[in-house]
Amino acid sequence: MPDIRAIPVEGLAEVRPGDDVPELILHALRSRRRKLKPGDILVVTHKIVSKAEGQIVGLGEVKPTASARRWAKRFKLDARIVQLGHRESRRIVRRRLGVTISETRHGFVCANAGVDASNVDGGRSAVLLPVDPDRSARQMYRKIKSRVGFAVPVILTDSFGRPWREGLTEVAIGVAGMKALRDLRGRRDPHGYRLRVTMDAVADELACLAGLACDKLSRAPACIIRGYPYQPGRGSGRDLIRPAERDLFR
Amino acid sequence: MPDIRAIPVEGLAEVRPGDDVPELILHALRSRRRKLKPGDILVVTHKIVSKAEGQIVGLGEVKPTASARRWAKRFKLDARIVQLGHRESRRIVRRRLGVTISETRHGFVCANAGVDASNVDGGRSAVLLPVDPDRSARQMYRKIKSRVGFAVPVILTDSFGRPWREGLTEVAIGVAGMKALRDLRGRRDPHGYRLRVTMDAVADELACLAGLACDKLSRAPACIIRGYPYQPGRGSGRDLIRPAERDLFR
Repeated sequence: MPDIRAIPVEGLAEVRPGDDVPELILHALRSRRRKLKPGDILVVTHKIVSKAEGQIVGLGEVKPTASARRWAKRFKLDARIVQLGHRESRRIVRRRLGVTISETRHGFVCANAGVDASNVDGGRSAVLLPVDPDRSARQMYRKIKSRVGFAVPVILTDSFGRPWREGLTEVAIGVAGMKALRDLRGRRDPHGYRLRVTMDAVADELACLAGLACDKLSRAPACIIRGYPYQPGRGSGRDLIRPAERDLFR
Repeated sequence: MPDIRAIPVEGLAEVRPGDDVPELILHALRSRRRKLKPGDILVVTHKIVSKAEGQIVGLGEVKPTASARRWAKRFKLDARIVQLGHRESRRIVRRRLGVTISETRHGFVCANAGVDASNVDGGRSAVLLPVDPDRSARQMYRKIKSRVGFAVPVILTDSFGRPWREGLTEVAIGVAGMKALRDLRGRRDPHGYRLRVTMDAVADELACLAGLACDKLSRAPACIIRGYPYQPGRGSGRDLIRPAERDLFR
């Protein structure tokens, strides 16, 4: 087994609508004399992609409903962010103790539909998830491949909470150039036992590694993961969403 | 930000009841001319710890109830493993489509109370979770500290499924020598925005990295993580279990 390394991509300029994120990342790498190598995976926090795609909403434009205002007041929240979360939700999964767990238009189940005001502009605006994170990942993947001459899988991430467990972990919301799941069903372990249910969410585990390498206080919104023997192929962030009929917790 | 590295610990002998796991790990490292350094974290799949602690059950000794037999037959499961899962559960959280999600005596919510026949002896026995994974982690932590002369945090892991998302990811079930959560609440992001809810489950993210470095087909049941600036302190696997009163999904 090879060592696995996560190399934070630092020194990125602040991303603005219309910016070319792959170009900014390649530039940041060049300026630190680092470069992508065959076998690398590029993991990018979705926030800079959302910003480049203009998925930013000035909170001054948001008019909260009376219901959003009541809920916000009760739990000391920003009613405009509550309102935006409702707008971005397809379905409210659970709403209690000031926390709204909703299903986004993409099918992700997360707090407040992924609407977030941190790491934007100090609280005047909020960032939404990309309209189609898999498409965003594919666009970055193609662009980088054409610029460096070899394939580098791309994973876009967000921080989600989970039932039963404390704390956020990073998850993959968009994937391009690799399988998101590693399917071990039917393979045998070193003792000859046939693995029955083992399907590993490797894209989520890679997202977690990137979460350790680029935390929310740093200015490293991306990282390179080197040494992980990924399975090339058509993976997607959607592969990681459990279909309704097989979900025990809808 | 430093690079983060995961170094698999390979060449461990098969672990048997009564074995000294820290000693086996240090021996495996020596034989490959690798060693622990200050700042390292040691992540160990719980299975070898369970084996060393004798948390193995020969399936021949297990007498499934009629109900366990019916459920197993319906979904082509091993009734003895179903039975063991029931025995190790404090509460059944959900039971459908052949999957039993239960709360273990420790408070973990996972499939079949963590009872697993993979990576044991080819299907004749099943392994249970350690009786007290935090205590097991603390014992390893103390032993290693006395042997190498500096502190190396220890994380014990298992693979859990999650609601709404496909695939398993590794989680931390026992922690010693470091904080399991990184509490960023009240800190400010680079834009001066005060982070409200950000508490990162870093021990789970470190477990995920170890999951990538030591997968279920390899013989690397442990890995060293180097370069992650962990917060020393009294952390535990229990810190990662959400208390019932703040859990929206009980």
